[in-house]
Amino acid sequence: MYYAGVDIGGKNIKMGIVDDFGSVVYSMTYKTQYERGYDAILLELISNVKQMCSEAGFDFEELCGIGIGVPGIVNSGAGLVMSCANLNWKGVDLAGDVTNLTGRPCRVCNDANCAALGEQRFGSGKNFKNIVFITLGTGIGSGIIIDGKLFEGLGCAGAEAGHMGIMVESEDKCRCGNKGCWEDYISAQAFVAQTEAAIRQNPNGILADICKDGISGKSAFIAAKQGDTVAKGVIDKYIGYVTYGLISLTNILHPQAFVLGGGIANEGATLILPIKSMLNDYIDNNGFYPYVDVVGASLGNDAGFMGAAALVM
Amino acid sequence: MYYAGVDIGGKNIKMGIVDDFGSVVYSMTYKTQYERGYDAILLELISNVKQMCSEAGFDFEELCGIGIGVPGIVNSGAGLVMSCANLNWKGVDLAGDVTNLTGRPCRVCNDANCAALGEQRFGSGKNFKNIVFITLGTGIGSGIIIDGKLFEGLGCAGAEAGHMGIMVESEDKCRCGNKGCWEDYISAQAFVAQTEAAIRQNPNGILADICKDGISGKSAFIAAKQGDTVAKGVIDKYIGYVTYGLISLTNILHPQAFVLGGGIANEGATLILPIKSMLNDYIDNNGFYPYVDVVGASLGNDAGFMGAAALVM
Repeated sequence: MYYAGVDIGGKNIKMGIVDDFGSVVYSMTYKTQYERGYDAILLELISNVKQMCSEAGFDFEELCGIGIGVPGIVNSGAGLVMSCANLNWKGVDLAGDVTNLTGRPCRVCNDANCAALGEQRFGSGKNFKNIVFITLGTGIGSGIIIDGKLFEGLGCAGAEAGHMGIMVESEDKCRCGNKGCWEDYISAQAFVAQTEAAIRQNPNGILADICKDGISGKSAFIAAKQGDTVAKGVIDKYIGYVTYGLISLTNILHPQAFVLGGGIANEGATLILPIKSMLNDYIDNNGFYPYVDVVGASLGNDAGFMGAAALVM
Repeated sequence: MYYAGVDIGGKNIKMGIVDDFGSVVYSMTYKTQYERGYDAILLELISNVKQMCSEAGFDFEELCGIGIGVPGIVNSGAGLVMSCANLNWKGVDLAGDVTNLTGRPCRVCNDANCAALGEQRFGSGKNFKNIVFITLGTGIGSGIIIDGKLFEGLGCAGAEAGHMGIMVESEDKCRCGNKGCWEDYISAQAFVAQTEAAIRQNPNGILADICKDGISGKSAFIAAKQGDTVAKGVIDKYIGYVTYGLISLTNILHPQAFVLGGGIANEGATLILPIKSMLNDYIDNNGFYPYVDVVGASLGNDAGFMGAAALVM
């Protein structure tokens, strides 16, 4: 059986047809052009899903359902997008509209939750029924899977681990209104700021040299590979911040595994092994609690639409 | 139908017979005397449960089951007490032993989880299916109820919200091996230390006067009622610490309500109303997420055995 998954982003819409085994039989990506407004995006989305079915060689009527991930506040039970700043949507009945226009079942969910579900069903998390997925990207996305099912909290307002507070004495307000949020320490933006601060204090080393023409989330990793101790210090501190939050999530949820995605997680073992080791050293302290795995996400940008498809499986 | 609930503490064992409606038809409390060792405690426990049935006027054979809360690390799925420092138990098959000796079904769980279940079934949380229960006592106990069921995490190692880290730059190690744990800011012990620190800085005020003969978790509340601004400052800061953790838990779990128990929560509205208001001011920030209630626990020391009884309902 076939399912359509759609991942609506601020810039691109990625969609695919997925079968029960998680094989992507067809996929496509196109520009969101959010300025067009909701109706135009909706109609093109439906037309493209129909086209994918035809390209994949089956009738649209055979499609079992359409799942959609949206980068905003979504009430997935009601199928409503409450608010999506990137697309300028507010209170739209996306699931209802898709079903009315197509006759196919539709479910809508927050995009990070979709990606979490995608990784748990078809990616790095597929050996586990209980995972927490964290994206180390521009912002911090997160998703919680308990017993193989998305856990979203009341009004789908949970699973926002990026806004866990990790620094109660901080004076810096987060965009969410809290202070000292995890996101403000572990987002790609925060990591770049930490790299910049290290360069200001050490303006003549390898790291400063590498960043002469611009700093990115990769700069410190490149410098560290060249033996730069300043860069290594930046990375170690960052790893400490990530692990500190994972320890909290372990104490609250104790999942089987954390799946780390997003740009910075692409650094792979350099980043993930020390986090896994610090986390499990902590867990070992009391000697009775089970080991928690830490793995990199494996589906990349496909996690979102694959998880969206899983919403209707 | 009747169920026995047992709450084993380091000092006292409290037990009762509870019916399906949460009415306690008989209860008793006696000294644990943990030095006697596991076997003696086990045999007396069974004998007392039998006695309660007889006092309550029904045959022990009619008892539907026995639930037991233990202050330690419990694998509730297996019925094993992995470790309990207060009782000096390690790896005992409590549920198996009770069932073998009595023929009645038995389930065992961590005591804070039992108390959480008790409050959700029969206490302040009974209007909610999703709560987080926090005890502001000597240590911080916590329990998570999702869809009316205890959530314990892998190996029952979750629901330890007291060891959420809220101060990543802290140098103070917690007993768990982490640093800057929530418990170290909001336990009764921490609150007393915060009161002491305020007195050292203000040795001549009302608060200092009240504490001349000893400080407790109540001292600051007594002084604040007399208009002391130093004490009010201590309480405000403490309320900030509590709320900071509740904000994190809201972002992760978004329950319908937090139920606060333990000694400090006995201060009632003085403590709970400002926490509720701060938490919901934060939630209101984004305008789409649902209100979270904050209520005081209502079962006091009975929550543990009542929740233990609920384990076998």
